[in-house]
Order: sequence, then structure tokens, then C-alpha cells
Amino acid sequence: MKTDPTASTNNSEWSLDLLSHRAANLPAAFNMSGAPGVISFSYGLPDEASFPAAELAQATAEVMRDAPGPALQYGAPDPLLSYLVDFIGRDQGLELTTKNLLVTVGSSQALGLVCQLLVDPGDYVVVEAPTFLGAVRTFLNAEAEVVEVPLDNEGILIEELDQTITDLKAAGKRVKFIYTIPTFQNPTGVTLGLERRKALLAVAKKHQVLVLEDDAYAGLIFEGEVPPWLWTLDQDNLVLHCGTFSKILAAGLRLGWIGGPPELISKIAALKVDGGTSPFAGNIAAQYARDGRLEKHILKLREIYRRKRDRTLAGLERYMPDGARWTSPQGGFFIWLELPERLDTVKMLRDAITAGVNYTPGPACFASRKGKNTIRLAFSHLPVEQIEPGLRILGEVIQRNLTAGA
Amino acid sequence: MKTDPTASTNNSEWSLDLLSHRAANLPAAFNMSGAPGVISFSYGLPDEASFPAAELAQATAEVMRDAPGPALQYGAPDPLLSYLVDFIGRDQGLELTTKNLLVTVGSSQALGLVCQLLVDPGDYVVVEAPTFLGAVRTFLNAEAEVVEVPLDNEGILIEELDQTITDLKAAGKRVKFIYTIPTFQNPTGVTLGLERRKALLAVAKKHQVLVLEDDAYAGLIFEGEVPPWLWTLDQDNLVLHCGTFSKILAAGLRLGWIGGPPELISKIAALKVDGGTSPFAGNIAAQYARDGRLEKHILKLREIYRRKRDRTLAGLERYMPDGARWTSPQGGFFIWLELPERLDTVKMLRDAITAGVNYTPGPACFASRKGKNTIRLAFSHLPVEQIEPGLRILGEVIQRNLTAGA
Repeated sequence: MKTDPTASTNNSEWSLDLLSHRAANLPAAFNMSGAPGVISFSYGLPDEASFPAAELAQATAEVMRDAPGPALQYGAPDPLLSYLVDFIGRDQGLELTTKNLLVTVGSSQALGLVCQLLVDPGDYVVVEAPTFLGAVRTFLNAEAEVVEVPLDNEGILIEELDQTITDLKAAGKRVKFIYTIPTFQNPTGVTLGLERRKALLAVAKKHQVLVLEDDAYAGLIFEGEVPPWLWTLDQDNLVLHCGTFSKILAAGLRLGWIGGPPELISKIAALKVDGGTSPFAGNIAAQYARDGRLEKHILKLREIYRRKRDRTLAGLERYMPDGARWTSPQGGFFIWLELPERLDTVKMLRDAITAGVNYTPGPACFASRKGKNTIRLAFSHLPVEQIEPGLRILGEVIQRNLTAGA
Repeated sequence: MKTDPTASTNNSEWSLDLLSHRAANLPAAFNMSGAPGVISFSYGLPDEASFPAAELAQATAEVMRDAPGPALQYGAPDPLLSYLVDFIGRDQGLELTTKNLLVTVGSSQALGLVCQLLVDPGDYVVVEAPTFLGAVRTFLNAEAEVVEVPLDNEGILIEELDQTITDLKAAGKRVKFIYTIPTFQNPTGVTLGLERRKALLAVAKKHQVLVLEDDAYAGLIFEGEVPPWLWTLDQDNLVLHCGTFSKILAAGLRLGWIGGPPELISKIAALKVDGGTSPFAGNIAAQYARDGRLEKHILKLREIYRRKRDRTLAGLERYMPDGARWTSPQGGFFIWLELPERLDTVKMLRDAITAGVNYTPGPACFASRKGKNTIRLAFSHLPVEQIEPGLRILGEVIQRNLTAGA
């Protein structure tokens, strides 16, 4: 028996040699735990008070009473797949079959599977700048090269996208897909307009690259309307669409899905050698969702998050200095804050945490680590009554840093 | 909008071009659904009647009442990790901390992560012959080269293992790890003896390769004792050990784990970009398992599977022809059946299914597809009263095929 299995190995020479190329120089694992007493705008976590805990216990009791076998055995959560076919039909007018869809372990597994499907080391993936860095990390783990295209208040810039892919192809690079979060984007909150959606699809068609549409904030709309999904608008089988139950039901269930052309979905299914996405969680979620119950729950969530957004916008108006600008998202979890150019939000973070407020510095949302004067504010997780005090502290920290840097 | 999103794409030229190397020539996804009315010894699924459905509903109610937040939010199932530290300490005398362990989405995710950690395309993995083909498929998906080493009734042959790795290294190949199921092996049911365990570790140390120990059938012992884990015996931080709750609690929860040296586990954690293994399923499992309840449940499972094994051995004795041989497993789910050499169990399968019995042909358990006169019998899933009739039919099919081939 080992005397101390937690001790560092003495074998670092061989162990580094045994590691795969991708594992050899990994960053540390992500840690979401926050400092106690600090008001955190940092993580895009769902509102915990909104989780329908009692209803999920009830749904579990029903599934365990009526159909425990399929929920506890190996297999797939077929009831959830059927729910998705119906739901997407009602929501988007897309007539799908279960061959268009695969339930995944959150949408994060879907992102990983798309990389397995499409990416060989050195292939290129085009992303928005800024974007969701968790996705970028998945692409980098697959040894993809990641190239950024900027966005504005209406989403990714189409001409720049076209030019970027044209240049890459001219340089002999293989571009595999465009990764986009077209609705209530992470981290900016902006939504890609209808005309740009069509133009993006035209660019994809012109260059014959796929589009990976990440719709993590689906349904969390506060007012007005959003255009149809890229998948819905697509005429050329160029779109893979991933969604999640993490933000509209409960992240802890780890349920997401990917949709697309059956011949790509079947290949993704063949790559998904994991014994099937949890039929326990999936069948419980489907039982919970029946009879429009999930859709009613989403209506409640819209109110919860709209209220938090409104409170955040009001706080920004009140506490941000001259020259600061921010987005006004129509839904989702995030507001993007641009501060005077001379501020460095990475350096300022320690000061902010000491003062009692936390945020995600903008550079953490760029593959290229630019955006040093920007901040992502997640208004989704913290209690609504902490928003105004949090922004007041943030305003003071910014003011102090502006004065110090002046 | 698409008119028929389930139609086959017209873009097969580009889509093949866009696919990754590994995805371009994938086999179809595995399908576990059986023909109705056929007695199936085919799949190593757990006994469905044994699932503690009511107790899991009760545990869910408790978690949803007492601590819904951590179970429904992003994060990790920390209570299950703590349970594992205690359980492994009691069972193996290994003094671990949570840094030695990571909860995974079944042990299948652990296998995939080990490939990400260690395997670059063209690297070599050594497996037992026969072995669990699901693991081999994961290795092949990672573009590993898979080399087989035979086993006998006491497990993998050590001299052959040593020679195989020696030859590979002499040929300039990079051998990354030995994949072994030392206890109640899938598909043979054999258990690696203590001396061979030590010898295997010596071979790993000599060649400086890692050992991936898959202990999927842990605890399902019917009599006697089994040697300590390879991980427990290891003095050199050479072993990664994966386990699962699929066979001892419920496969549908999708909960497994991997243990090993902290510096490898932390790298695996960094590669596991999936939002965390379900805290919903994990916290419920931990709540269920508390106060020795899971260990009591395992005692019941031992009786259930021992009875099925005994019934299978009795049926084989009664119905198998002269010249047939089979293993006598001390635990687990499987018996390995060797039939007269002239039989082809792949060809015979159609006949068997028509007659009303299903099995896994031996070649499906060899990376090299050899073993044409062998069969894996899973006694775990089918109702105990179907075992004798099933083996009677199988005996008739074999007799008919022997006569036809004579």
C-alpha cells in the first residue's frame, strides 16, 4: 500500500512524457467558488431560488413509481427527446423527428462532440469576439486554432466574418465551423438581427463551412421578439444547434441537446460513447415539463431575470462614470460594460474583491485576451437586492482607479 | 424554413470533407434494444428489478427539501466525492483525499478523459484479449492503436504482456497505458490473481507505462475473496482506477469516478469541460448511500447475481455439447463460453435469434475480431427463470449447427 497517495509523484519525467500533446500544457481547472461576503457579478449561474425543487421531487416520485426501469437502466431519455421534438415544433415551426436530435450532458458535451466530429488538430474555428470562453477552451482542447471576428450591438460583423474566412482559405487553412451565440449573447447580451442571420448563413454557404449555433439562453426574453434560430432559417443543412435545460430548469440536471441534419447527428451519436445521457435526470425533466409546465416556469423566470436586468441597468446609470457604455440586453444573463480606455479591469479586480464586489474582466471573454477596459456583468445569480449595493461599490472602485491612473 | 429537415443532405461532398479524421469512418451507434420474445444473454445490463426506485425517490425528496441549491446548480457532487473517500478507505485501506478522485459521467467518461490525457493519434494502448469493446471503441475514437495480450483463467498473461510492450518499444512505438479489468473481467468473468497483479505492476514500472484499472463490477462478489486493487498495490503512482455506480446502484444515474495521483486527476479535471458531473444525480446517490445503505444494497445484489450465475452454470452443464468449456466467475455479470472450433458464433447468431435466444458472439469482444467459436453470456439482466429455457434453446441451436457443419 502507498504511504501517501496524495503526495506529488516522483515520476514527473515519465508522466510528462506520457501525456498527450493537448494535456501537456493545460491551465488549471476552473473554480467557481467565490469569496464569502463578496457581491458577485462574475459567474453566469442561474438564480437558485427559482429552481423548482419540490416539483422535481414530485416528478421523481412519479417516475420512480410509474416507470423506474427505463430511468435507472442504461439507455437514453426518450421522453425528453419526444418533448424536444414537440417543443421545437411549437416554438420554431420546425418539423423534426428524433433523428434530428440528441440529448447530451449539458450543451457542453454537445460542444465537445462537435469538435470530435469536425476538428482535426490545426483546423480553424471562427468565434465571436468577445465570446463564451468555455466553448473556446473546448475548441482549444481539441487542438483547433481559434480566430475571432468582432461583434457590435446587432451581433457578429458579417463583412469581417466573410473576409476572415476568405483570408484563411486563401492561406490554405481548413475552416470547419463558425461558433455563434446569436441570442442574448454571452458575454455581451446582444442579439443577432434577422438580416444578419440570413447574411451569416449566406457566408457559411458561400464558404461551405458549418455553423454551430449555441442557444443557451433560449426563452429568457424580457420584451419584444427575437428572430428565428439560424437552424430554423437554414436551407442548406449547414447548422448544428445546441440548447440546454441548465438555464430554464436546473443546471445540476446536466441536460442539453444538439440538433441538426440526421447524418451528422447519427455520427455525433456514434462518437458519444458514454452509456447514454442520464435517463434518470432526463425522464424526470420530461415528467416535470409535461402539460406546458416548463413553459409556464419559463414565464416566471423571464420576470425574475427581467427584474434583475432592470435593477442592473438602473444601477449602472447611477454609478458608472462618464465615458462608460453598456449593452441593454433584451434577455439572458449578461450586460457588457465598456469603461474608459485607460482602465485595466484585470488589474482592478483585486481592488474590487477587496472592496466587496466581483466581476469577470473582459479579457477572460476574448480568445486573444484583449478588451482590457471591459467587464462582463452577470446579473443572473446574485439576489436582486444585492445588485444596487454591488454596483455602488463597483462605481467607487472604478472612480478610485480612474483617479489613481489620472 | 426547411421543408424536410429529416431528408438526407445534398451536401455529402463537403460534409465528408468537413468531418474530422476520426469521424469520417465511424461505425453506426450502438443499439441495445432487443427483439421481443427473445431470451437475451447479450447485454451486460444490471438487473432491473433490483433498482432501489422507492428509496431513490425518497432520497430525492430529502435532497430537494434539505439542500436543493447545490443539487440543482452548476458544480460537482461533493457529497458523493466524500462518500467515495470514506468508502475506499474502508474497503481498500487507501488513505485518500478528494484530490485523488473525480466523479465522472459513468466510468465511460473516465475512459474518454484518460484518452484525452494520454493519447495522441498513433500512440499505443495494450488491452486484454478478449476485453470490453466499449473501451476499445473509446481508444480507437482517440486514434490510438490497440494491441491485444491474451488472458487465461487467472487473467492477463504477464510474460506476453512484457514481451508485447518490449517489442512495441523496440519498434519505436509510444505505449501509453495498459487497460485491464482485473476483477470479474468483461467478457470472461476471470479475476487476476495477487501474484499476477504484482507482476503486472512490475511490468508497468519496468516500461514506465500507466495502468488503467477498470473495476466496473466492484463489490459483486459471490464467494471467497478478491485481491486488492492494482491501485491499492501500486507503489509508483502508475495506476489510474475507474469505478462506477452503474452496476451497484443504477446505470441511469450515470455516475462513475476515476482515482489516481493528484497531478493526473487535476489534469483530467481540467480536460473535463462539461459543467460538472450531475450534482442532482450525485447528491441523490450520496443521500441514498449514507449510513451503509448502499453497502447493504450490494449484499442483496450479490445474492441476486449469484443465483443467476448458479442457474447459468447449471444450464451450461446440462445443455452444452461435449468439447464446450466455460469460465466459472467468482462475481460480476459474465461467463465466457468456448465451443468446438468448427462453430462460427457470428454466423450462428441469426439462427439463435430465430430460435429465441440472443448472445454476444466472442469476436465482438476482441479488437482483432478473433474468437469465432466463443460466446459471451451475460447472466445479469434477464429474469432468473428465463436462464434455463434460454440455455436449452442455445444448446439445441449449437447441436443443430454442429450437425450441419459435420
